[in-house]
Amino acid sequence: MTAPLKAIDGNADLPALMTELAARARAAARVLALASPEQKNKALDAMERAIRASAPAILAANAEDVAEVRAAGATSAFIDRLTLTPARIDAMADGVATVRGIADPIGAVTESWQRPNGMTIERVRVPLGVIAVIFESRPNVAADAGVLCLKSGNAVILRGGSDSFRSCRAIHDCLVQGLREAGLPEAAITLVPTRDRAAVGLLLTGLNGGVDVIVPRGGKSLVARVEAEARVPVFAHLEGVNHVYVDHSANLEMAKKIVLNAKMRRPGVCGAAETLLVDRAGAAASLKPLVAMLIDAGCEVRGDTAVQHADSRVKPASEEDWDTEYEDAIIAARVVDGLDEAIAHIHNHGSHHTDAIVTEDAAAAEKFLNEVDSAIVLHNASTQFADGGEFGFGAEIGIATGKFHARGPVGAEQLTSFKYRVHGTGQTRP
Amino acid sequence: MTAPLKAIDGNADLPALMTELAARARAAARVLALASPEQKNKALDAMERAIRASAPAILAANAEDVAEVRAAGATSAFIDRLTLTPARIDAMADGVATVRGIADPIGAVTESWQRPNGMTIERVRVPLGVIAVIFESRPNVAADAGVLCLKSGNAVILRGGSDSFRSCRAIHDCLVQGLREAGLPEAAITLVPTRDRAAVGLLLTGLNGGVDVIVPRGGKSLVARVEAEARVPVFAHLEGVNHVYVDHSANLEMAKKIVLNAKMRRPGVCGAAETLLVDRAGAAASLKPLVAMLIDAGCEVRGDTAVQHADSRVKPASEEDWDTEYEDAIIAARVVDGLDEAIAHIHNHGSHHTDAIVTEDAAAAEKFLNEVDSAIVLHNASTQFADGGEFGFGAEIGIATGKFHARGPVGAEQLTSFKYRVHGTGQTRP
Repeated sequence: MTAPLKAIDGNADLPALMTELAARARAAARVLALASPEQKNKALDAMERAIRASAPAILAANAEDVAEVRAAGATSAFIDRLTLTPARIDAMADGVATVRGIADPIGAVTESWQRPNGMTIERVRVPLGVIAVIFESRPNVAADAGVLCLKSGNAVILRGGSDSFRSCRAIHDCLVQGLREAGLPEAAITLVPTRDRAAVGLLLTGLNGGVDVIVPRGGKSLVARVEAEARVPVFAHLEGVNHVYVDHSANLEMAKKIVLNAKMRRPGVCGAAETLLVDRAGAAASLKPLVAMLIDAGCEVRGDTAVQHADSRVKPASEEDWDTEYEDAIIAARVVDGLDEAIAHIHNHGSHHTDAIVTEDAAAAEKFLNEVDSAIVLHNASTQFADGGEFGFGAEIGIATGKFHARGPVGAEQLTSFKYRVHGTGQTRP
Repeated sequence: MTAPLKAIDGNADLPALMTELAARARAAARVLALASPEQKNKALDAMERAIRASAPAILAANAEDVAEVRAAGATSAFIDRLTLTPARIDAMADGVATVRGIADPIGAVTESWQRPNGMTIERVRVPLGVIAVIFESRPNVAADAGVLCLKSGNAVILRGGSDSFRSCRAIHDCLVQGLREAGLPEAAITLVPTRDRAAVGLLLTGLNGGVDVIVPRGGKSLVARVEAEARVPVFAHLEGVNHVYVDHSANLEMAKKIVLNAKMRRPGVCGAAETLLVDRAGAAASLKPLVAMLIDAGCEVRGDTAVQHADSRVKPASEEDWDTEYEDAIIAARVVDGLDEAIAHIHNHGSHHTDAIVTEDAAAAEKFLNEVDSAIVLHNASTQFADGGEFGFGAEIGIATGKFHARGPVGAEQLTSFKYRVHGTGQTRP
């Protein structure tokens, strides 16, 4: 047992604390990288039990956090994100069980081939190393991110919002208990033991090679700061300005169902549609019913002139609307001159997250899916499927819109790297 | 046809020039991403022919570069790297033909699966975007890197050493001719049209999203600068401090062959071995013959006390030797207490590039291959196989030791990203 890290607030030497914490995480990562699937699952099993058993302690810690922000005048939306309930704790424990059930990515041979000289080469999955997860008020991220990193053999440094510090600490205690029961190093899942906001800036420097990748989970301002300041790779999406393009050959009933779901199922998730593009060649038939349906469902529609003509309740769209992620029951809508203009609009205004085409024309679908440069492109399906669970990954740590390493829903597999294992029988290079 | 970029030296507004050049490369990348394999191969074919036909012009340009650096007192090694010959031009053209022959990675579906709701999800390879290749005196890198980026659907910005500017320009002319003949945008392969060294610093900033990844090709100081300053991802290795561990159960004849090849085949390549680790349990039999063989072959051996006792010609190793990439006929050698100490030595002194074990013990080999955290780990084969060609990739743009995105030999496949294509029949998310 190493000595516990000095905590908590008013830490005299935060840089030294963070460097020490990263060094311990690095050492733990070496052990985790070689841990068996069974050992990791044993830890996950113990974590699930600990979370369920500790629900009263977690709720008590959370109540203190909530009381503090309520006294400070936080908004009700903020308080809702922060608040844990028995049901939310159950869901957190269920999430741990789900991760236990997914395939262990580490050690999987993804390719192997033989060279003419008889050598065999295998490409095999290995962990990335140390992942820093920076999140805001939702304390359940501590568990969700912690266990997904563990499953993928990575050590993780968790940094929650200072408002949720007590809740995160109570959850983290359960995770550490699981690590201990499985004989894994406690530093494999480290919670930054201070509310000092300067800790975030230090994590973003990468702590001199102590952090391999940063995953921000939270609002746009957090993600923007991490993307701007991080000196190490970041898996993130800044926003999801997602489009549904209704081609002239779309089945109207299907288009209505998909557009309604893409926008209104949960308007605040990153996979929600923000812009509806309607093909001029089909607009006479489709525009009015699509717009009326959205407005009748409680969605504000901001349209170009053609869309405004389709329904008197449509508000005029400004240039800014095409670039806006509303995260709300609002949609921008315009009529475009066919597939090429739709693709051009998405190129000019999209965020490379998730875009969909509704069409019965297979060639149009292929063109859209090839030419739209987004992490996820869908044909005749809702953009709200942009989710690791819906992809069958079991769990995700977020969605990435960059093209490096991870893209789309980031599950356990995408938290890995690889190495080449070569077996020879004495081969030398001529 | 867009207007040509303003060249060359004494450019008043270099930042504006570089930004414009990156914007053109970005536009070209969009076209290239959708180019067919046939169209790209047509360009490669024309490039090969142009290089062969332009050999006299390339040699004349190169002669001017060489005369200039010779007059400035360059070393003979530097002049050798810079000098082109008819044979080197042939090899460059052959390299273009090789790249034409490798499989086109773009559009390949690497995974596909069906969800319970009937949606199919495909993971398909797409290009990364715009790659900046920064290199030094070897002008052939312009062709090698240019065509590999083209094959993988990426636009490339080439920045050669200012000493090889005329040579690079002559080679670049051939590449542009190939693009033109195939109807591809000329900005797909851009040569920075100035010798101004400040261009490198501008590329390293990423030019406000204009450059997606940087590949440095050259000496340690270039790579170190790029790794320190780049604000975008870098595919590189700083050094190859590679080890061969001779286990007590090694076949001595095989060990001799592998050690000799790993060090002496070409002592200057990044896959060359720099340190020999000999298992104490087998040292009585193996140490003397291994050391004598190396010294007899003209290799200087710097050893610990045990190695010095094995042969009077051994020089004493200092602590620094364990961390040194000699790039020369020199090897550091020490005796270790078995496999665990060998792995610990590599962890403490290696550079995560390429390491090998020689053993007849399969369990020892598996442990070494699992626990040594390097891009390439070999059992009973020479470290000099660390090469994209030897791996069967056809060509490589370099070797990466980071864990993000690309690792090991970086071939056409590793210059790609992916997207998810989803086909539905009207699915919405519950």
